[in-house]
Amino acid sequence: MTKSEYISYEQAGVSIDANDRMVERISRSVAGTFGPRVIELKNGFAGLFRLDFNERLFKKNYKNPVLVSCTDGVGTKILIARMLNRYDTVGIDLVAMSVNDMIVLGAEPLFFLDYLAVNKLVPENVAEMVEGIAKGCKQADCALIGGETAEMPDIYRRNEFDMAGFAVGIVERGKIIDGGKVEKDDIILGLASNGVHSNGFSLARHICFKQQKLKATDKIDELAGAAVGDVLLEPTRIYVKPIVKLLSQYKVKRVVHAMAHITGGGLLGNIPRVLPKNCNAVIKKSSWDVTASFNFLQNKGPVEEQEMFRVFNMGIGYVLVVAPDFANSIAKKLKKYGEKVYRIGTITAGTGKVVLK
Amino acid sequence: MTKSEYISYEQAGVSIDANDRMVERISRSVAGTFGPRVIELKNGFAGLFRLDFNERLFKKNYKNPVLVSCTDGVGTKILIARMLNRYDTVGIDLVAMSVNDMIVLGAEPLFFLDYLAVNKLVPENVAEMVEGIAKGCKQADCALIGGETAEMPDIYRRNEFDMAGFAVGIVERGKIIDGGKVEKDDIILGLASNGVHSNGFSLARHICFKQQKLKATDKIDELAGAAVGDVLLEPTRIYVKPIVKLLSQYKVKRVVHAMAHITGGGLLGNIPRVLPKNCNAVIKKSSWDVTASFNFLQNKGPVEEQEMFRVFNMGIGYVLVVAPDFANSIAKKLKKYGEKVYRIGTITAGTGKVVLK
Repeated sequence: MTKSEYISYEQAGVSIDANDRMVERISRSVAGTFGPRVIELKNGFAGLFRLDFNERLFKKNYKNPVLVSCTDGVGTKILIARMLNRYDTVGIDLVAMSVNDMIVLGAEPLFFLDYLAVNKLVPENVAEMVEGIAKGCKQADCALIGGETAEMPDIYRRNEFDMAGFAVGIVERGKIIDGGKVEKDDIILGLASNGVHSNGFSLARHICFKQQKLKATDKIDELAGAAVGDVLLEPTRIYVKPIVKLLSQYKVKRVVHAMAHITGGGLLGNIPRVLPKNCNAVIKKSSWDVTASFNFLQNKGPVEEQEMFRVFNMGIGYVLVVAPDFANSIAKKLKKYGEKVYRIGTITAGTGKVVLK
Repeated sequence: MTKSEYISYEQAGVSIDANDRMVERISRSVAGTFGPRVIELKNGFAGLFRLDFNERLFKKNYKNPVLVSCTDGVGTKILIARMLNRYDTVGIDLVAMSVNDMIVLGAEPLFFLDYLAVNKLVPENVAEMVEGIAKGCKQADCALIGGETAEMPDIYRRNEFDMAGFAVGIVERGKIIDGGKVEKDDIILGLASNGVHSNGFSLARHICFKQQKLKATDKIDELAGAAVGDVLLEPTRIYVKPIVKLLSQYKVKRVVHAMAHITGGGLLGNIPRVLPKNCNAVIKKSSWDVTASFNFLQNKGPVEEQEMFRVFNMGIGYVLVVAPDFANSIAKKLKKYGEKVYRIGTITAGTGKVVLK
């Protein structure tokens, strides 16, 4: 029997060599996210991150440290990336989805890992994806210490792919922000989003591409002449740096009573996750500028306003519930850190609900 | 305009209610994996795990703790689950792939998170998947503190799904096992696998289902009359408990010089990951019983023996390179902990390669 009669792994649909090339490119692009706490091991069985307990700063900040961990994907936003053949931004979304969830508790992100699965491994595209993830990690001040890339033609549709992200962070036990301190008259601050972020894409795609039969590259008057795909692909804003910095300014006074990352479920679904049962969050819709993309989607659908607020962030990507006496100084600080801040509502006596006004 | 004219999120292909039911079932099945170090928060923005620094035992064991993190999927083994419509075991594989990688470094797993994505959310199937993951976490002594379930019909083929897993563990910095101590005359011990585990499924499926045109339920004489799908679906063995226990017996003496989890690349690809450049690992093929499933695949292919050893574990799922004077006592201990242990080779002077004899 000659060698050519044997079945090799490559013939069965998986290219080990292409995977090796990929691993090399990935290693290069992630190295830029490493700080001194990452320990590099050549064998790659796992990623290593020093907690630095012996260092004075860590010991000073953490008496009773709690690890905080989140996982998420980016939903069908990746279909927009594929339509535009542009893979360098969804990685930012992937990081954003996990780290923005984590900081809600008052945690500081430490490191991130990704899982990428593709119908067919196109090394250039996967390299772009990982570059995006590395960019997101830098924005979130965390190290990209591991990842896995899998090629599975029988599971993913032609040209399709998916990504999952995992973030680990740390918070001092006594400083976990869980909404327990929220009370009547607290002020609700909203930080502007970059657009639809990474939620509601099934509905957005349905409206734009099935119903309106647009192409991703079609330029839209209502979107200031931008291509609809570009507007939808705008990466999710990462709120880590301003929020971590803000909390470091209030180490003793507990003035931030709750925070929420506005993801699937919108303001209506996410604020109640941190709201005590005896409070309502009264949100004044006119208090911020709803981004043009939401007006466009709502009009074209048409979609009921309540449904819009249940699916999309409507221009507010992150919410803080703060002590009334500190609302102005907190807003001022967040503006200084580069955020667009709106005073979007107040806490009243209630039943754990969001009331839109 | 009446309400029925509005597009709702549900009509656009994603059922929020089905997702809510799922979240409820998932919460139930994961609670069994929680130890006292898990902090339960209702809002679910993130999973919380106490490091217990203030407790005496933790302080005694960890002076300079390093977090260890791994991510992996189960490859196309999930297609076998789908063929058999049996979703309660691939979760064990998912946990195994990450935690077996982590213990290679001498780490102890702490917690796990999962990402599940499906073409269509069938609550019963997803509940089975998560039950499998919870079972794997119990076998690996780690808590399942988070997860995400996504329904994405436009990305996954009909009836298909994928899973990604993410594990975090801890190791004392000075006790990281990285192969640096491996030297000539060290003994290589192999722990029996449960079969193909979670690698080589593209080739295995090609041989069984494309070439031999078998059905997953076909009973095979060469497999002792078992159904080929059942044999392939056998969950990956989780080596956490025996390895963590073994290492706890040798806290001062560094007698375990290297370990390797035998995944994609087989013995030929994985042992070199922890082998110094001036050593070879000489493996005696006749020193263990190659499981029937590998003989079956090799004969049916036919597949060259070298290729078999590069794709499959060939019956050895985990390898330890140990000091010769301790080989017998280590093997004895691992047998006592329930492992099938083989002395499969020795370390010689060389160039960082595996030599099959």
